[in-house]
Amino acid sequence: MGRESRKHEPEVDRLSHSNGATTRTQVGIVGAGPAGLLIGNLLLQAGIDCIIVEQHTRDYIEHRARAGLIEHWVVEFLQRKGFADRLLREGKPHSGCEFRYRGQRFRIPYASLYGGRTHYVYPQQELVKDLIASFLNAGGDLRFTTPALAVTAYDTPTPTIRTSTGNIVCTFLVGCDGFHGVTRASLPTTAFTAHEKQHEFGWLALLAAAPPSTEEIIYALHERGFAGHMLRSSTVSRFYLQCPIGDSIENWPDERIWYELETRLALHEPWSLTRGPLIEKGILDMRSFVYEPMQYKQVYLAGDAAHIISPAGGKGMNLALADAAVFVEGVRAFYKHDDETLLAAYSERCLKRVWRAQEFSHWMLHVIHAPTSGHSDADFMHRLQHARLERLRTSPASAASFAEEYIGWDIDLGAYTE
Amino acid sequence: MGRESRKHEPEVDRLSHSNGATTRTQVGIVGAGPAGLLIGNLLLQAGIDCIIVEQHTRDYIEHRARAGLIEHWVVEFLQRKGFADRLLREGKPHSGCEFRYRGQRFRIPYASLYGGRTHYVYPQQELVKDLIASFLNAGGDLRFTTPALAVTAYDTPTPTIRTSTGNIVCTFLVGCDGFHGVTRASLPTTAFTAHEKQHEFGWLALLAAAPPSTEEIIYALHERGFAGHMLRSSTVSRFYLQCPIGDSIENWPDERIWYELETRLALHEPWSLTRGPLIEKGILDMRSFVYEPMQYKQVYLAGDAAHIISPAGGKGMNLALADAAVFVEGVRAFYKHDDETLLAAYSERCLKRVWRAQEFSHWMLHVIHAPTSGHSDADFMHRLQHARLERLRTSPASAASFAEEYIGWDIDLGAYTE
Repeated sequence: MGRESRKHEPEVDRLSHSNGATTRTQVGIVGAGPAGLLIGNLLLQAGIDCIIVEQHTRDYIEHRARAGLIEHWVVEFLQRKGFADRLLREGKPHSGCEFRYRGQRFRIPYASLYGGRTHYVYPQQELVKDLIASFLNAGGDLRFTTPALAVTAYDTPTPTIRTSTGNIVCTFLVGCDGFHGVTRASLPTTAFTAHEKQHEFGWLALLAAAPPSTEEIIYALHERGFAGHMLRSSTVSRFYLQCPIGDSIENWPDERIWYELETRLALHEPWSLTRGPLIEKGILDMRSFVYEPMQYKQVYLAGDAAHIISPAGGKGMNLALADAAVFVEGVRAFYKHDDETLLAAYSERCLKRVWRAQEFSHWMLHVIHAPTSGHSDADFMHRLQHARLERLRTSPASAASFAEEYIGWDIDLGAYTE
Repeated sequence: MGRESRKHEPEVDRLSHSNGATTRTQVGIVGAGPAGLLIGNLLLQAGIDCIIVEQHTRDYIEHRARAGLIEHWVVEFLQRKGFADRLLREGKPHSGCEFRYRGQRFRIPYASLYGGRTHYVYPQQELVKDLIASFLNAGGDLRFTTPALAVTAYDTPTPTIRTSTGNIVCTFLVGCDGFHGVTRASLPTTAFTAHEKQHEFGWLALLAAAPPSTEEIIYALHERGFAGHMLRSSTVSRFYLQCPIGDSIENWPDERIWYELETRLALHEPWSLTRGPLIEKGILDMRSFVYEPMQYKQVYLAGDAAHIISPAGGKGMNLALADAAVFVEGVRAFYKHDDETLLAAYSERCLKRVWRAQEFSHWMLHVIHAPTSGHSDADFMHRLQHARLERLRTSPASAASFAEEYIGWDIDLGAYTE
């Protein structure tokens, strides 16, 4: 399809959507998670028409607890775009994290090792609230409780989102609807190669209504398994516990959870964990996936719809936001600068960052997880983990390399972003 | 046992040994590999009496092809001790290595990333020649074709090396007799914990009478498996090929070897491999071992007798030389400074370096080896390898961390060494 036919699509018919009729838009966005919302906001800023459909209610997605670690480049990018006011006011900059093993602890002062860049701890649902508010304030068309039923006409110049309230006919369509979303599922399976890794253990993910017992994130390697103390707010903390693959939440009464957290996080020096009601308990499926490429004709995938990554290292949401930034740069280049090359390179550009993050996350998993006992080399591998942590503790070069990966390497956006 | 009783052992009776009688010495050394020879030389310099027994002939060990990469700190240390004249004259300093994958190559200029430190390529047997010559010139007692039959009296103050020509009664005894040596085998198995890792593939190790086809070492990751081009001299080159575990040398006729080397090392740009007669072919058992602790009463283990490491990264001989330096520092501290603490800490000090090297070597293996096909995650893991290499190529922090590990972090020797 030529550029001209896409640039001169008919005027958007906003009024018709509630009647079950067909709406046209330049960019149709499936899913109002961080990726979909950032894409929508950036497009509105650029004067490019878009519609977001979201299956859940506004209240639901504004309170769904997810990730909480925002990379430095993301904060800078959001600030530049005007979406970071509350994040900067209420989020907490972080400049170090702590590792524990064999009852000892050490701190990696990662910000000072990577040019003063910091992380921000800011719960994902807060960012979602901010992006919803700014999108609606700018007059954006965001349709809650409107599940996409299918993506159709994906091999025509007008890929279409089919919803119960009508079809949205798009020039570009981007699926930000998560790993189990409708967008990728609607496309031919032959369009993608799936790369998959099932990790050898599970994670018990916990939210406690308890103030944090630490100022900085803690990663603890223990022979009983990993324990993580993450941060969310002054009244809520997130914890993770390594558990066997296929474990059931019924096996984890509260008392056992606190006992394991206390045991695995214990230090030779005095330190105590503040308990609180466990307000969320779940077992995470520790699998990693990457679908390649991340586009099929004019249908694009962003965030979890294209790749899922283990929570180790906190990369998932940041990758989704990177996809969003790269996608919008491509759409801007197309509409504003008559340049199709960036959209054509979307997948390749995103996947570099995706695989690098997968590599880091895999490394993190293998630093902090006790090898599955029973393996003949479990003991040797456990020693290697100690060596890896010792190296991180004692080698500034190793710590600097970790810092770059953990804070997130700068994104490579072109001139069309501003 | 008190310090005094060890310090005032009877005068050494050198004349008796050829008569099958008992000889006494301060330090008995089993094995004239790099570790044993360096220990002997350093002890003679310090005026501490020692005897080395070696099962093979001088000619054999002076021509046995082994490792060839000598770390920066080793060269500096040998130079300071006066053992590096020929090494510095004939060895070749190296400041970079090359990685290849997907037909591309990139160079890691590791010396410039680690304070100008270089590696030296100098075949192990050349170092062995130098150390034999210096030991004999200094009047050292080195007994070729004298296999140690057993180590006895290991739990008394006078551990003893039993040989066919008589017993050598020692104050300290150090086993530098390799992984299958007599020393560790003579000690109670309960004295040690063995940590073992069987790697998932084998290596075909090759020596070719062919000039190198590269100026710097090449590590190639290929979907068919790893290929390595190592350097030895202007007329001899070492190559490695990943092969299935348990593979047999009969499966590797010369033509197949050259075909695999050419295929796995191939570049998109023009490059050719110079063939030559294959003068050595062998399949390496890719296992890693660490025995802890590295001492039992007054019997010490050094080098391969205590630990073996995969060849990836070239750490084996360097670890043996580090053990030797740490051991002699302890013996000097004991005899010259009345300080037993360094010998007591021998194992702990060595093992830090050993495990760090094991960690690095394991990392190297997993960067450059195609995952065993058939594993459900082989494809995912192969992509992670590309990401790791991409990171090494593009991130100065990652390359700097690699450089420190590859060149070898400086050794932590105390004041008693000089």
